[in-house]
Amino acid sequence: MNIAVLGTGMVGQAIAGRLHGLGHSVVVGTRDPQATLARTEADQMGNPPFSAWHSAHPGVVLASFADAAVGADLVVNASSGAATLDVLGLAGADNLAGKVLVDIANPLDFSAGFPPTLFVKDTDSLGEQVQRAFPRAKVVKVLNTLNASLMVEPKSLGESSTVFVSGEDPAAKAIVVEILESFGHDDVIDLGGIETARGTEMLLPIWLRLMGALGTAQFNFKVVR
Amino acid sequence: MNIAVLGTGMVGQAIAGRLHGLGHSVVVGTRDPQATLARTEADQMGNPPFSAWHSAHPGVVLASFADAAVGADLVVNASSGAATLDVLGLAGADNLAGKVLVDIANPLDFSAGFPPTLFVKDTDSLGEQVQRAFPRAKVVKVLNTLNASLMVEPKSLGESSTVFVSGEDPAAKAIVVEILESFGHDDVIDLGGIETARGTEMLLPIWLRLMGALGTAQFNFKVVR
Repeated sequence: MNIAVLGTGMVGQAIAGRLHGLGHSVVVGTRDPQATLARTEADQMGNPPFSAWHSAHPGVVLASFADAAVGADLVVNASSGAATLDVLGLAGADNLAGKVLVDIANPLDFSAGFPPTLFVKDTDSLGEQVQRAFPRAKVVKVLNTLNASLMVEPKSLGESSTVFVSGEDPAAKAIVVEILESFGHDDVIDLGGIETARGTEMLLPIWLRLMGALGTAQFNFKVVR
Repeated sequence: MNIAVLGTGMVGQAIAGRLHGLGHSVVVGTRDPQATLARTEADQMGNPPFSAWHSAHPGVVLASFADAAVGADLVVNASSGAATLDVLGLAGADNLAGKVLVDIANPLDFSAGFPPTLFVKDTDSLGEQVQRAFPRAKVVKVLNTLNASLMVEPKSLGESSTVFVSGEDPAAKAIVVEILESFGHDDVIDLGGIETARGTEMLLPIWLRLMGALGTAQFNFKVVR
């Protein structure tokens, strides 16, 4: 499949690398490819610059958001929650129309420090905002409830755990579930329409506190039933 | 231990019955004991009236909130989130002073129908409101992330799952963990101070949507790590 991954951070790298490894044709989208490749410093979290990752993944193409999206069958939003609507606007509504739009972003607000709060919640969600802003895209909210490495290698936990899908289009969700299974996910719960993204986005406050209490981000929720 | 359970609904019944079965001396608190016993209709959820449960548990005493709290070593808030501050006020700040106050309530707002939203979240929590309103009580937020029957019989799931404690007083949390273990809980995560109740209370939106998607409330989260 031709897949665009919008965002060059840890999530974008993890998703793009895994999809490319599985044989998909992957283009990573960024605001300014030359500027992205020119950065040589680590990011705020201490992660190495994208150029280092790109050198190790020469088969993945880097392009502008719009150039990445235009040729894709499926688009992954791996940008930050705060940047999401801007990034998707740059990708272009026409370039997203009719396509599966996988939304991994969380509406985290770091303006008051750590842990962040949520800039949309409870009566609305970022997933719904994305679907309203791009009504011709088939938005599927998924993978926003675990860290980047576990998103794409869930079996590294050594035990089955759960991921959730939310979206209005059953066929789009089926395509996403197939990708999730190719990553190793064996317990996918379809929560229902995109409104249910409120539930998964509001998992972040406990996720952040669990990371503090456990001293690691290598954990995930399993719905035992 | 002498334990007061404030609230006569499903949660109060489950907790009171289980604690009594384990040998504790249990007094259930209600606004007006005579009125509670006089009710013969099922509640809004179709649950049988308290009097039916009480007939089957004659060893559990029913008393006013204040009379229940005054003689207790440990007090459990099993009232609804909307009623919590009022109920605890009726129990009496002096009757809660110095005691472990186990808070199970969730800040659910049903005013716009189902699923409910949260009347406090993200930058505050009901657990914190309770601790601020009753600064001499040792508030421990716990068990608000699973249904009443699983709170007290977690092993009925047939598999280990997780519960969380939040609170400022380590000794109070240790007492609560001991009670949880007597119920059968074998994976208790101490999230930290009462501020972390924001995390567990914000689990409710996904809990409610999982109940819809799975068609049952017989499930719980396990933190796989």
